[in-house]
Amino acid sequence: MKPSQDDLEVIGAFNPGAVATDQGVVLLVRVAERAAEKRSDKTALPRWNTASKRIVLDWEDNADLAPVDVRVVKQKRDGCVRLNFISHLRVGYSRDGRNIDSVAGAKLEPAAEYEEFGVEDPRITRIGDTFYITYVAVSRHGVATALASTRDFQSFERHGIVFCPENKDVVLFPEKIGGRFYALHRPSGAAAFCKPEMWLATSPDLVHWGEHEPFLGGSGVWDVGRVGAGTPPIRTSEGWLEIYHGNSRREEDRGIGAYAAGLLLLDGKNPRRILGACGQAFVPETDYEREGFVPDVVFPTGIVERGETLLVYYGAADTCMAVVEFSLAELLRSVKGK
Amino acid sequence: MKPSQDDLEVIGAFNPGAVATDQGVVLLVRVAERAAEKRSDKTALPRWNTASKRIVLDWEDNADLAPVDVRVVKQKRDGCVRLNFISHLRVGYSRDGRNIDSVAGAKLEPAAEYEEFGVEDPRITRIGDTFYITYVAVSRHGVATALASTRDFQSFERHGIVFCPENKDVVLFPEKIGGRFYALHRPSGAAAFCKPEMWLATSPDLVHWGEHEPFLGGSGVWDVGRVGAGTPPIRTSEGWLEIYHGNSRREEDRGIGAYAAGLLLLDGKNPRRILGACGQAFVPETDYEREGFVPDVVFPTGIVERGETLLVYYGAADTCMAVVEFSLAELLRSVKGK
Repeated sequence: MKPSQDDLEVIGAFNPGAVATDQGVVLLVRVAERAAEKRSDKTALPRWNTASKRIVLDWEDNADLAPVDVRVVKQKRDGCVRLNFISHLRVGYSRDGRNIDSVAGAKLEPAAEYEEFGVEDPRITRIGDTFYITYVAVSRHGVATALASTRDFQSFERHGIVFCPENKDVVLFPEKIGGRFYALHRPSGAAAFCKPEMWLATSPDLVHWGEHEPFLGGSGVWDVGRVGAGTPPIRTSEGWLEIYHGNSRREEDRGIGAYAAGLLLLDGKNPRRILGACGQAFVPETDYEREGFVPDVVFPTGIVERGETLLVYYGAADTCMAVVEFSLAELLRSVKGK
Repeated sequence: MKPSQDDLEVIGAFNPGAVATDQGVVLLVRVAERAAEKRSDKTALPRWNTASKRIVLDWEDNADLAPVDVRVVKQKRDGCVRLNFISHLRVGYSRDGRNIDSVAGAKLEPAAEYEEFGVEDPRITRIGDTFYITYVAVSRHGVATALASTRDFQSFERHGIVFCPENKDVVLFPEKIGGRFYALHRPSGAAAFCKPEMWLATSPDLVHWGEHEPFLGGSGVWDVGRVGAGTPPIRTSEGWLEIYHGNSRREEDRGIGAYAAGLLLLDGKNPRRILGACGQAFVPETDYEREGFVPDVVFPTGIVERGETLLVYYGAADTCMAVVEFSLAELLRSVKGK
């Protein structure tokens, strides 16, 4: 993939949203870029500039930065956090769901101050004729989740921030249930009263969210660091099937840790009710999952149904995207078995 | 004030919501309690128990706890945070707005797991015949803001969590503006990308919130630690008047720091637009503001209009509640002067 500007280089294309359309599978791929130039004593911190409407590079002395992990630095002067890369979303097409036929020119790029450090980790849910995209918006104001919609993946309408900082990994259910839309989301509070959790919320209109409830806490082992939604839930004969993620390491360790995936089966009429769960159903195994910008990561973000087969799209090692096929019947057996 | 259980003692009554009613001023006072018994080697961590529906005391060895500040400890075994006290809300009546005539038996007490560590810092906004109460709900799931309503301050209807963790200091505007309700809120993200900020959101129904936008960042001096809404906004001839709080110390310092108050004047038709601001309009000065459970705190939470006089109710030193009178005309001059 070509970088979006001459002074940037692409370092990864991962964590894709995916949806079935009349044109086959459409993927919305998170493309991460960093400065093409390297300087031994400085680090480039990319930022979308509201005035010039392009990405600028803030070159900071390494001595003024404290590393948090491989992606994140803290500015010593003000304690604020910055990323050493910036992401946007690109549209890809795949007729068979396994091979990319083309990558379109259309992009969902930072276009507002609340996205100035990047647009990340999209999930796509089709509701009627419209594709709704929840994505992470990173800025000086924190890490929030915003909503956009499109009918053609060529132009995108923004609906603002739907889950305020810090909140990531929001997936929408594809229809109203009992008169309300539902979402799963992953808040991260500053006080850390609690273990990591996934939450549930409802909405009349997809833009305004309330009735927030804790939904699923981690088991404390493979998901001790984080637990959040992965793919948008799909309706099956047994209920809603959700593929979620867990992270093995705690925030305090300052590293990132391994990401694996589990399965949840939710009551079709009441998604609050968990009928079955299966942790570590899908774990990093291949070289491209175990080695990369962030090692040991499988991070499912998109799902497409092809009859009895499910195509699950995921980010591998925060570097590349991959697809894995599951038998729907087998997944349902796994999730009901525990 | 009597404790709510024999094994508890009241350590403070502060941060009151306040509203004018036909019965005079009604106050909803945060009452903080801790274990009446003291043990030299242990600390009691109070918790509302969902099964027994009363407050139980978890006695923990001091060696197993790391102090975060005077109110907060971290459990070494799991890194989870607990409070060494628990709060509920009690109803008080004042005909003249200056003296408490009576404290009613009615209470808004923890009644769900999401409130198990306490119900704190209410704000009251009258909309039509209903009084809406935003309050902080603290639990193992984090620090969130929930909504309740009442018509009589004797029974309360709960509407669940309206702002998910971590979020505090939510105030509602008393009417729809351009077809939407508005709120100010204070999210606290784990990653600390940013300086402390107050945010704004909109709602069709007071329960579901969206269109979240950063609203006001701190000036970086008296409000370097936190900046959030204080009293619910009131409509004046010049626009919305909001009394907000700032905190002088950063979270990293592990202390709490001084709380003072500032003024904001917002466009009557578009509350996003700040017409005027005045920092440190009201600061700790008296003994009861400078000494107490948390020293150097004035924390405005309630406001009542009496013609050209404003009665502002506030918590002093996280210990007692107090009222201060302002001339509306003077406040408007102050806020427009800067």
